[in-house]
Amino acid sequence: MTTLQDCRALDAQDPLRELRDLFALPEGVIYLDGNSLGALPRATANRVAQAVTREWGDGLIRSWNDAHWFTLPQRAGDKIAQLVGAKPGEVVATDSTSINLYKVLSAALHMAAQDQPGRKRVVSERSNFPTDLYIAQSLCKERGFTLHLVEPEGIEAALASGETAVLMLTHVNYRTGAMHDMAALTAVAQRAGALTVWDLAHSAGAVPVDLHAANADFAIGCGYKYLNGGPGAPAFVWAHPRHTARMDREQLRQPLSGWLGHAAPFQFAPTYRPAPGIARFVCGTPPVLAMAALECGVDVFAGAAAHGGMTALRAKSIALTELFIARVEARCAGLGLALVTPRAARERGSQASFAHVAGYPVMQALIERGVIGDFRAGEPSVAGGAADDSHAGADLLRFGFTPLYTRFVDVWDAAEQLRDVLASSAYRDERFSRRGAVT
Amino acid sequence: MTTLQDCRALDAQDPLRELRDLFALPEGVIYLDGNSLGALPRATANRVAQAVTREWGDGLIRSWNDAHWFTLPQRAGDKIAQLVGAKPGEVVATDSTSINLYKVLSAALHMAAQDQPGRKRVVSERSNFPTDLYIAQSLCKERGFTLHLVEPEGIEAALASGETAVLMLTHVNYRTGAMHDMAALTAVAQRAGALTVWDLAHSAGAVPVDLHAANADFAIGCGYKYLNGGPGAPAFVWAHPRHTARMDREQLRQPLSGWLGHAAPFQFAPTYRPAPGIARFVCGTPPVLAMAALECGVDVFAGAAAHGGMTALRAKSIALTELFIARVEARCAGLGLALVTPRAARERGSQASFAHVAGYPVMQALIERGVIGDFRAGEPSVAGGAADDSHAGADLLRFGFTPLYTRFVDVWDAAEQLRDVLASSAYRDERFSRRGAVT
Repeated sequence: MTTLQDCRALDAQDPLRELRDLFALPEGVIYLDGNSLGALPRATANRVAQAVTREWGDGLIRSWNDAHWFTLPQRAGDKIAQLVGAKPGEVVATDSTSINLYKVLSAALHMAAQDQPGRKRVVSERSNFPTDLYIAQSLCKERGFTLHLVEPEGIEAALASGETAVLMLTHVNYRTGAMHDMAALTAVAQRAGALTVWDLAHSAGAVPVDLHAANADFAIGCGYKYLNGGPGAPAFVWAHPRHTARMDREQLRQPLSGWLGHAAPFQFAPTYRPAPGIARFVCGTPPVLAMAALECGVDVFAGAAAHGGMTALRAKSIALTELFIARVEARCAGLGLALVTPRAARERGSQASFAHVAGYPVMQALIERGVIGDFRAGEPSVAGGAADDSHAGADLLRFGFTPLYTRFVDVWDAAEQLRDVLASSAYRDERFSRRGAVT
Repeated sequence: MTTLQDCRALDAQDPLRELRDLFALPEGVIYLDGNSLGALPRATANRVAQAVTREWGDGLIRSWNDAHWFTLPQRAGDKIAQLVGAKPGEVVATDSTSINLYKVLSAALHMAAQDQPGRKRVVSERSNFPTDLYIAQSLCKERGFTLHLVEPEGIEAALASGETAVLMLTHVNYRTGAMHDMAALTAVAQRAGALTVWDLAHSAGAVPVDLHAANADFAIGCGYKYLNGGPGAPAFVWAHPRHTARMDREQLRQPLSGWLGHAAPFQFAPTYRPAPGIARFVCGTPPVLAMAALECGVDVFAGAAAHGGMTALRAKSIALTELFIARVEARCAGLGLALVTPRAARERGSQASFAHVAGYPVMQALIERGVIGDFRAGEPSVAGGAADDSHAGADLLRFGFTPLYTRFVDVWDAAEQLRDVLASSAYRDERFSRRGAVT
């Protein structure tokens, strides 16, 4: 059994321990919510201040050239590419996750309609992050497809019928932390004649991802979770070069054809002519201040590269998560918690979720003690639009373990605090029962 | 004839003169490009630093509630609403101009298809800003409409045929500064049975706009030009409440149905149910740092409100522009300039554009002397996609007159510098001939 002394020793020996110094973490806080909003890198404040004061304030319009603002989507994209097994020039950072999904799913549906017009189904997971489902619902309605939602164990069967045009999945589930085998499912989908769209929101920067090795078709991801790009940071988008090449060849558009996705934006030509490759997925003018912050977030991984990169980060993430699960199950036995994250490390991302009937006040009481995780309400019903208000299943406590800045002693302390909150019934105080907008 | 002494007197008497102190303008620069990128408000650096360090760094995930991040689109939207004749709750600040155009044009086409399925034409202006045309081309292709481009004087005739579903115009032309009569054209369009979509990129914050008085249908606009929201700032979107009410009633979606446009995003329901009113036009998570900067930009207009607001700003803008045109025409006679902006103040926005065969090097030489305007290449041909590279018409020097921070002496000095660059042939130096990405 691991002891607190062991945790201190693990931290002292941790080859990644210096990375914590790259973050400006508040005193007295154990932050286990980097899966929702990554922490602030130390470099960001100065970089953003420079972008505001020097580049915008002093440079004004000249900074589009002088400060290379126009290439920000490509520059940040190339850095993200290294974390997800994509090649330079294959990723752009732009817009939001939802909007990037609209672009790639739209392109995938165009291709499917052209290649296999009889296939009219998009398959996804019932507990996929809602924005993915909402965007897919919209596109399905526009294009005459149906969105077919299944449980994880039903994905292969759903593909087998041969009706599926696109398999759209989030690699790591936002609620449970369960991770799909991207390569295996992509192979199954492709054998069944379907294209794959992967949402990497909870995996880019959290687990090793290799889009080329998996032979994925399209991918998108989030800039403000494990990439530490700041609240609402620009997202990213990737398409396999076989698809962007085909889009070039066959003049297949993604529908959000803004001027910065044009082959020659400064010719101000009245007819759209898409830029080659992934650049066509850029739409409007890049949000420079937000892009500057995103770049700082992604640059942290360059620091990690010297210490083993994503492989080392993954090893530490697994060790942190295993320790947390073990400590919580040892210390909180009989206190109403149930692990909903898979026990096998290869089947989960960098988070652990526990069900508890009083999940919301328990998390509020923990946060008051400086242990910040988050809460997701019980799995909502899927019985049509009118049933949005009904909830089934248990409420979840989510704990994310960002190996860049989480220490083993933090994990120890968090489990102790959780035990104390539960054992003392501290969470029953009525001040913990009122819910804010974000829960 | 106005003298330099007169200009000094005009500045001394200017009721808006204190507003200049709200901006952090670099020394030695006369900035006449606020129509492309607005200058930095003094308040912005601190506000953004606070959002980075205190709200994100210290508050972390808690700031979604504690710092009211989720209501940023509405809060900034309400402030913008005051500048464009919209009511509180009718505008949200979100995404980019291109993406917001996709949302409203899509909604307009859905309505048109439902109400008048025989109408299959979107009418716009040949010299509309390209991103508007590109987005319209994409939607027209998807929905079986055709984009019909006309010269400004041909708009009424194009509407007369009764085939038009939507009239999509930019209120103030980005090249020439020519301004449409929004109320008159909206009335013509509506009499002809068409909906109107107005792009306010070059008018919000530059000229008085009254969307309700004009009875407009939909509008979008840009945050980084006259609103001073910073490079690539979030844009805004408005729909007349009769249309959002109809969307509520008939379950008409805008296609970019992201989770923050959901009626109850934190229920994480698998089925999309749009928020009522304009809130359905929000899509993904708001870019907090960029939104904080945008809010500072718009807040400058609250300072202007005490000094006569948009009416006073417009009066000064006209005086500045008239003075510039008069001084340039007096001092640069015979030096190859030709005014392309309408002479009647009511027919133009807050800019003056001059054609010159050597427009690019002339502007570069001016910028070297600290007078920053910008350059737009000669009007591109519209003869199909393949002709994107051919250019017709003269190159333009653009000068924007932001009354918030431009002085009469600046206008005087800018005209003198322009004369000097032209008369001395300083612009013929070869170092001015090489073009950057942004021209």
